[in-house]
Amino acid sequence: MPGPKNLPETYRNVLRLRAVRDFDNRPLSDPDLHAILEAGRWTGSSKNRQSWSVIVVTDPDQKERLAETGDFTDPLRRAPMAIALIQEGAGYEFDIGRLAQNVMLAAKAIGVATCPVTFHRHEEAARVLGIPDGKVCRYGVALGYPAAEIRRSQMSGRKPLNEFVHWNSY
Amino acid sequence: MPGPKNLPETYRNVLRLRAVRDFDNRPLSDPDLHAILEAGRWTGSSKNRQSWSVIVVTDPDQKERLAETGDFTDPLRRAPMAIALIQEGAGYEFDIGRLAQNVMLAAKAIGVATCPVTFHRHEEAARVLGIPDGKVCRYGVALGYPAAEIRRSQMSGRKPLNEFVHWNSY
Repeated sequence: MPGPKNLPETYRNVLRLRAVRDFDNRPLSDPDLHAILEAGRWTGSSKNRQSWSVIVVTDPDQKERLAETGDFTDPLRRAPMAIALIQEGAGYEFDIGRLAQNVMLAAKAIGVATCPVTFHRHEEAARVLGIPDGKVCRYGVALGYPAAEIRRSQMSGRKPLNEFVHWNSY
Repeated sequence: MPGPKNLPETYRNVLRLRAVRDFDNRPLSDPDLHAILEAGRWTGSSKNRQSWSVIVVTDPDQKERLAETGDFTDPLRRAPMAIALIQEGAGYEFDIGRLAQNVMLAAKAIGVATCPVTFHRHEEAARVLGIPDGKVCRYGVALGYPAAEIRRSQMSGRKPLNEFVHWNSY
């Protein structure tokens, strides 16, 4: 695991957040779901525009229809629920990324596993979700309690720091 | 402050992350900067593409030139340094938002204040930063130790939960 051991819990959780693709069937408890939605709601956005909302998808048929709009959405099929992230009006996709990360880190903090998913055919996703014109849903988060056995992802490495960081100019 | 008091430190930090616009002049210590860059490096991205890198901007003239490429960049002028976030090749802006949120939360965890900034004239930002064609820098994070006195932002509220959340469809 990366990161010195004497750094705070928050720091260690930020470094150790990983997508989980295997979930228990149990639905989330109401308090856990509420806590996660609150973490999303309090995310910062450019000029505090909050040009976003979320759709909590618990209905299995609706979840399956949504899964069909993306290419690597099996985690969503295996999860008991999903949160679809809606970018509205003048909002930036950058802020939707910040929202997703807060949702996933807050979930991890309270023992809930998550996996981000992309809706590559976002116009289909909008139709499935009944999203009005001018709003877009390209991303979502599958979530649930982690399965007893979690398969390790094959995509867990990262490029080295000297390829990630430049100094003062590219 | 939002959020029940008995939730874990990580959860509370996710809910309480706020942009800070007033910084101490001291540069970041090397261990603190390294810890923050590591948190950025380990951020998850679509298909683990890691189509990104960062430019650490410590040179005051370079920082001023960069600040001139955005509209609300005074926090960057008041901060001792900045991290410019570069979206490369097939990367998504969504992932850059995830990267920014990890950088800001890791910083908060170790006592470093941050403020996200937008480079509205991103082609100028690319020229200032010497970024090659095909890569883009629309966002950065100003960072430093917080000033002894921090002015409260006028933009700290959030819309209520029932305007943020829909169920199963919009």
